[in-house]
Amino acid sequence: MNILYDCATAPSPRRARILLAEKGIAHETVQVDLVRGEQLGAAYRAINPQCTVPALRTAEDGLLTDNAAIAAWAEARHPEPPLMGRTPAEKAEVASWHWRVEFEGLLAIAETLRNGSPAMADRALPGPVNYAQIPELAQRGLARVQHFFETLNDRLADITAVVAVDFARIVRVKPGERHPELVRWRAAMAQRPSMSL
Amino acid sequence: MNILYDCATAPSPRRARILLAEKGIAHETVQVDLVRGEQLGAAYRAINPQCTVPALRTAEDGLLTDNAAIAAWAEARHPEPPLMGRTPAEKAEVASWHWRVEFEGLLAIAETLRNGSPAMADRALPGPVNYAQIPELAQRGLARVQHFFETLNDRLADITAVVAVDFARIVRVKPGERHPELVRWRAAMAQRPSMSL
Repeated sequence: MNILYDCATAPSPRRARILLAEKGIAHETVQVDLVRGEQLGAAYRAINPQCTVPALRTAEDGLLTDNAAIAAWAEARHPEPPLMGRTPAEKAEVASWHWRVEFEGLLAIAETLRNGSPAMADRALPGPVNYAQIPELAQRGLARVQHFFETLNDRLADITAVVAVDFARIVRVKPGERHPELVRWRAAMAQRPSMSL
Repeated sequence: MNILYDCATAPSPRRARILLAEKGIAHETVQVDLVRGEQLGAAYRAINPQCTVPALRTAEDGLLTDNAAIAAWAEARHPEPPLMGRTPAEKAEVASWHWRVEFEGLLAIAETLRNGSPAMADRALPGPVNYAQIPELAQRGLARVQHFFETLNDRLADITAVVAVDFARIVRVKPGERHPELVRWRAAMAQRPSMSL
């Protein structure tokens, strides 16, 4: 049986949850308590030295320690339905948007949150190494999130984008009157059962 | 004919150059002068609104505006030799390392350079929007590059890693006595003609 190391409240494992649901890949779930720092403890570190969720222990192919590995594995092992495009042009477009949503969206939101929240002191980056917060980086992250929403308003849709847009609520950025396409797209995506994960 | 928008001195387009060489994909090259800011001018902006290199205009599939798109397209359109793994387990491992080298390596080096170099004032991030430098981020980037070299010393090899390790020279981090495996790996990679690109 596949085992997903998850945290129900965090955006990164949500990407894996939605992916597995869209692919129909059966799995059991183990919750890792990020609020209490369980990901940094010896028990979880032995499972994933990156000290991050999601991780997926697969029945056939061993342990996958990040979303990049989980997505590549899922597309190769369970090709239907394809989530990364069918033709070379589609694959290029999906890869490009995926990368942009990750760098311009998720990363900027995480920067804002991790460098500004008192609860995340010294946890400005995920993983086993502690990094001090940089308040200016929280401010820059917020500016980047605003630009990202303008970009997203014109284009796109996918798992990473849903997770990024919903995650942005934590730094008080929401799709609004300036983003009518984004509001419409998010409402349409809400029709898919996996998006409530 | 495929046209690569390139800059001979920059690390990001170097990834595309090596990829195209390893795949044997014929192309013409157009140099974009990043030092003089040609990527931000109207002419290049009309080609790639991201204002970044590489971009690849393909004969069959239109314009690709970043390395993510170029790599996905190349693997789908020219599958041999495969550069992203053959089996689901291989594809997962390549995707994971590719992601780590990009986030922990290339991004950290770029952070160090772009937030510390007087020549890059207000260009702390690539792309059409100007962001002010954050000196603390340059320092944090440097610490991350050091950790990244320790990680890399234990594991791995690929196009993105070669580019990251060589790019790190610009912030004066080099593989050394503490990284014997990394030194051996880089010497072995130097045997491949495409690595001199």
